[in-house]
Amino acid sequence: MTKIKILEKSRNFDGYQLVCSHTSKVNSCEMKFSIYLPDSKKKLPVLYFLSGLTCTEQNFIQKSGAQKYASKYKIIVVGPDTSPRGANVPNHPDSFIGQGASFYLNATTKKWKKNYQMYDYLIHELTETINKNFNVKQNNQGIMGHSMGGLGALVCGIKNKKKFKSLSALAPICSPSQSNFSINAFNKYLGTNKKIWESYDPCKLFKKNTFPSKILIDQGLKDAFINDLYFQDFIKICKTNYQKINFRLRKNHDHGYYFISSFIEDHILHHSNILK
Amino acid sequence: MTKIKILEKSRNFDGYQLVCSHTSKVNSCEMKFSIYLPDSKKKLPVLYFLSGLTCTEQNFIQKSGAQKYASKYKIIVVGPDTSPRGANVPNHPDSFIGQGASFYLNATTKKWKKNYQMYDYLIHELTETINKNFNVKQNNQGIMGHSMGGLGALVCGIKNKKKFKSLSALAPICSPSQSNFSINAFNKYLGTNKKIWESYDPCKLFKKNTFPSKILIDQGLKDAFINDLYFQDFIKICKTNYQKINFRLRKNHDHGYYFISSFIEDHILHHSNILK
Repeated sequence: MTKIKILEKSRNFDGYQLVCSHTSKVNSCEMKFSIYLPDSKKKLPVLYFLSGLTCTEQNFIQKSGAQKYASKYKIIVVGPDTSPRGANVPNHPDSFIGQGASFYLNATTKKWKKNYQMYDYLIHELTETINKNFNVKQNNQGIMGHSMGGLGALVCGIKNKKKFKSLSALAPICSPSQSNFSINAFNKYLGTNKKIWESYDPCKLFKKNTFPSKILIDQGLKDAFINDLYFQDFIKICKTNYQKINFRLRKNHDHGYYFISSFIEDHILHHSNILK
Repeated sequence: MTKIKILEKSRNFDGYQLVCSHTSKVNSCEMKFSIYLPDSKKKLPVLYFLSGLTCTEQNFIQKSGAQKYASKYKIIVVGPDTSPRGANVPNHPDSFIGQGASFYLNATTKKWKKNYQMYDYLIHELTETINKNFNVKQNNQGIMGHSMGGLGALVCGIKNKKKFKSLSALAPICSPSQSNFSINAFNKYLGTNKKIWESYDPCKLFKKNTFPSKILIDQGLKDAFINDLYFQDFIKICKTNYQKINFRLRKNHDHGYYFISSFIEDHILHHSNILK
């Protein structure tokens, strides 16, 4: 069992916001994650939040305002760091590849494969660590994310329908095989085998499979990156495949945390209603 | 009239979060401030929020979650930077003196007096700039702050009872003449004349004067800096002088933004109820 270290602990609403670290065997480095624990004697469901490019485990807990609703709706919220980190972990000068930009996949290329196993880290090692160390209702988990983390949530969700019972995203990258955010990173992490790329592409995965509960997605219409997100392609695939989805276009909203904080209550309530 | 530049503008809840800059004659430099503007055709009251040591105009708008309640209760919230800044503005290697640490006073010593006129900047130049550039109900203003900014709010409020109709603070420095946070800065900014020190010390000012409406103050009991805030002295003076005050001690809460976000709704509602 991985031993966790508590790095930060602050009272926030009716609960505590923690930041922890633990040694990840999967990523061969120390990993950080945040966890918000509402006051509760009962076991609670868990919602995983995956952050966007350049973020750490801090951005979401400092800026989203999620804790108020995690406290209100009694749901534990876990926010992993966006990548492995450390002096011995490979990096890249481009901020869309390397540390802060894992794309939540298992790298296959020589340079990256030792540390960049974020998909396995999330699906196996992190969820086990949370289940063993905190008072959680096992098999009662949801997943959501923003931008690169929205992509991660859609991929992790659809590939692990028994593990995650609820799924939502804010301005997700819906087709990393086409997006300027991800093409370089996918080339570096996965090489040129397009079959492997497809296994991390929601526009491919949702063609073959549906998620059992309704997915909630919000997308700002003033999002400066809107043309790199490919949400129209994703909506079309969901419609064709009868995927239940509540896709909401938000007038005047951009891609940042002011957009996230405006709708975070809706998302936490979405997960809470399914998981409770 | 000072011309303002809009540096950031994002949709947030039912309104917009802006960051602006303008040339301050009083501080002889460019100054930044944040302003949250709820959607409204009517003129709205204004609440000024003064931040703590080392902050900029960003910390409060990123971390407090205030916008949700500013939007809900229809109140404009303005957050000035904590000091003048720039290559030509004096600084100090200690983070509790100089840029990020104005203590919201008018410096009188040779090195600091050209730029560090934050009291006059707030009371005259910034409020005039806000009144002239935005759709505000003039003479319908409140003021609040955190830590060094709580001190600033108490001082600005009690000295300008006609200007500010509502007053509150989170973990304020109640006696800067005694606090390790401020003694060095007061020496540098004001020299050794204790009469001038007293004019920025709530424990002196509230002895001679009362604020017309009830003051709201929250203080965390796990605040690591609790012995440098002198809140017991301030409560005693308020009681002796019949100052109406709602002073709430908050179990398990520390000095940071998780404490602020937990109680920001109460504070915005406090101001809204008085100003509406």
